[in-house]
Amino acid sequence: MTTPAQSLPEMGNQLARARQAAAELAQFSAVHRNTILLSIAKAIVSGADSILAANEEDLSACELSGSMRDRLLLNRSRVNAMAEAVQNVAELPDPLQDEPIEWIRPNGLLIRKVRVPLGVVGIIYESRPNVTVDAVALCIKAGNAIVLRGGKEAAQSNRRLVEIMNTTAGLPRGAIELLDSSTRNSVKDLISARGMVDVVIPRGSAEFISFVVENATVPVIETGAGNCHIFVDASADFDMADRIVINAKTQRPSVCNAAEKLLVHRDIAREYIPRIVRQLIDSGVEVRGDAAVQKIVPEVPVAKAPDWDLEFLRMCIAVAIVQDVDGAIQHINLHSTKHSETIVTSNEVNARRFLNYVDSAVVYWNASTRFSDGGEFGFGAEMGISTQKLHCRGPFALRELTSLKYQVVGNGQIRP
Amino acid sequence: MTTPAQSLPEMGNQLARARQAAAELAQFSAVHRNTILLSIAKAIVSGADSILAANEEDLSACELSGSMRDRLLLNRSRVNAMAEAVQNVAELPDPLQDEPIEWIRPNGLLIRKVRVPLGVVGIIYESRPNVTVDAVALCIKAGNAIVLRGGKEAAQSNRRLVEIMNTTAGLPRGAIELLDSSTRNSVKDLISARGMVDVVIPRGSAEFISFVVENATVPVIETGAGNCHIFVDASADFDMADRIVINAKTQRPSVCNAAEKLLVHRDIAREYIPRIVRQLIDSGVEVRGDAAVQKIVPEVPVAKAPDWDLEFLRMCIAVAIVQDVDGAIQHINLHSTKHSETIVTSNEVNARRFLNYVDSAVVYWNASTRFSDGGEFGFGAEMGISTQKLHCRGPFALRELTSLKYQVVGNGQIRP
Repeated sequence: MTTPAQSLPEMGNQLARARQAAAELAQFSAVHRNTILLSIAKAIVSGADSILAANEEDLSACELSGSMRDRLLLNRSRVNAMAEAVQNVAELPDPLQDEPIEWIRPNGLLIRKVRVPLGVVGIIYESRPNVTVDAVALCIKAGNAIVLRGGKEAAQSNRRLVEIMNTTAGLPRGAIELLDSSTRNSVKDLISARGMVDVVIPRGSAEFISFVVENATVPVIETGAGNCHIFVDASADFDMADRIVINAKTQRPSVCNAAEKLLVHRDIAREYIPRIVRQLIDSGVEVRGDAAVQKIVPEVPVAKAPDWDLEFLRMCIAVAIVQDVDGAIQHINLHSTKHSETIVTSNEVNARRFLNYVDSAVVYWNASTRFSDGGEFGFGAEMGISTQKLHCRGPFALRELTSLKYQVVGNGQIRP
Repeated sequence: MTTPAQSLPEMGNQLARARQAAAELAQFSAVHRNTILLSIAKAIVSGADSILAANEEDLSACELSGSMRDRLLLNRSRVNAMAEAVQNVAELPDPLQDEPIEWIRPNGLLIRKVRVPLGVVGIIYESRPNVTVDAVALCIKAGNAIVLRGGKEAAQSNRRLVEIMNTTAGLPRGAIELLDSSTRNSVKDLISARGMVDVVIPRGSAEFISFVVENATVPVIETGAGNCHIFVDASADFDMADRIVINAKTQRPSVCNAAEKLLVHRDIAREYIPRIVRQLIDSGVEVRGDAAVQKIVPEVPVAKAPDWDLEFLRMCIAVAIVQDVDGAIQHINLHSTKHSETIVTSNEVNARRFLNYVDSAVVYWNASTRFSDGGEFGFGAEMGISTQKLHCRGPFALRELTSLKYQVVGNGQIRP
């Protein structure tokens, strides 16, 4: 397999080093990998001053404000939290330690299925520097080398964090490679480095993830884009529905598991829609509605056709009236990004129908969509939330950073 | 999610029908799916005359000869074998029947991980009409709709087979869609139908698979390309090595698990290379060698640089001398397509090293590479052999045609 051409010459060297490091890491014991992680955690704590100084450089160079600036900001307690997260990953079970699966064929061949690291994992992400550390910890825990392509607004913070992590004793050279974030060519080269990189995980806006999916020749795990729906059924407990709608929409509107659409059963529309629209507006949410919603609450502006497919990622929601649970399922399967959807109902038949027929990674009955998260699921960590059906679906972490391999032992068998 | 534009208008309808059928199939019980398979098997047997007539049309239109023509040819016993294969798939365990995995979080949420079909599976393949039937049987068994894009040389055979299978009672309309094989646009449209097709499985030449990987926006399972290696170590039993080399190279040279390269430990090169080269030539194999091999057997022509990365798929092999097991591992990891490789040795340390460090889907110790096959592995069927590390690796069949989904049941939980 020949190395694909790189438009950035240094990048070819970085990927070759990562490939070599992956071969070494794959042979490390769990104890060895965990020792490295604990050293990384220590190095981050003792390097806090220089990390904060680098972060200060990023902050003074950047033109972000408000919550975007806050995503970039580090302080001593956030640095400590990053180190703690690495320690927590070290304490998780070894994802390469599987129960051995082996069998003997009638011809005497012994076939053993073993779990192995993926190899070289590429991750493309934006501002938050803690993602740099989390991703490194998860990849090394699973025996992979990692190639990071962070956002340019966090360039100095990421550079310093990677320098510090790379001083760790026992870590092979190339295990953590940070790509040039000043040019989009590093993204293009990374996603087309077939044979050098085993998987690319893009994190970011729906547009960015689409760009990666459409241009990658390396296998991709699609993450994150979440046009999440809430369906309030005729038999819903209205108080519960209120709590779930307000929580899913407003508790953290910029994240992928926040609700973007509200569907209401037509039999309760006249009663429930004015009530929830008022609460949404009181909470600072911009509400749009379909024609039927407008008839009930005329002050709500009309939702345009593209709104139904859009992830607003802000305090905005579109509301539609549907005929019944099947209408809700149909609407969701047509418009959702297959991330997370919830039904609020007291009717178990409708709930089962929704759970079975809605074709999304996580489907809820009487709970907020905001629980779609590796930590909330009890996985102890999270690499992202997959919205595709291959390899992994929903919140994923360590196990999904591994692959398998067959080792076959014979005594001279040939195929007749 | 909006439907991607299709250059072939009819194809948009076909994919929409498949999407709809997939939603229905996903709810069928195992008994229902198996009943459909048994009906398909019966329909094939009773439709034999018209299948053979259609196949006759393909044969008279085609310009293939020899083994390529034979791949296309159907006769009564081959038709019966196709039906039998469907029956066998019906008898396999249900891939959607998993042990239920569920857990309760401290906040009371019940999280259940359930196995579900992938949805719509696209498969692109060439001449052999039995692939049409095998792929349909595996997809329906796993609850998927299937979109087939066969080779144009088998157009009439495939059309008739799909017509016959589509008459089966209980099969939703759209469960089996056959695309126009007369234009490459149907391939391009299929691999870019993101949101309509959940996975595409290309089968064919390395060039064709590369084309699909480079142009697809739909997730792909890469299959098949096999630049497989045999390493004969210093301590190898020469008789065993002879049998394995001749079997892996000559028993069926046109398939992906046939050997393409022979690496020999330098300590035995003077003794072993003349012996095996003679046997290979006597078996009708064209032998090429590196400079060191040429010194020992001067009549062997030199292998060119691209030969080491090439899948010959014919009676041709390239031979190189390596320093030791690490040299062999390094050569293989640089040049192989990560399909199947074997070491012939009596030295367990070297064997373990080879099994652990060679980064391929199937790694053998003292056996022919020709065993990389779902049937030979005991899976009862095969959809292909994956050479990527995501989702599945090595021979794959029913289980790998499924995905998962989380169903979460609460009583009003919101995220604090």
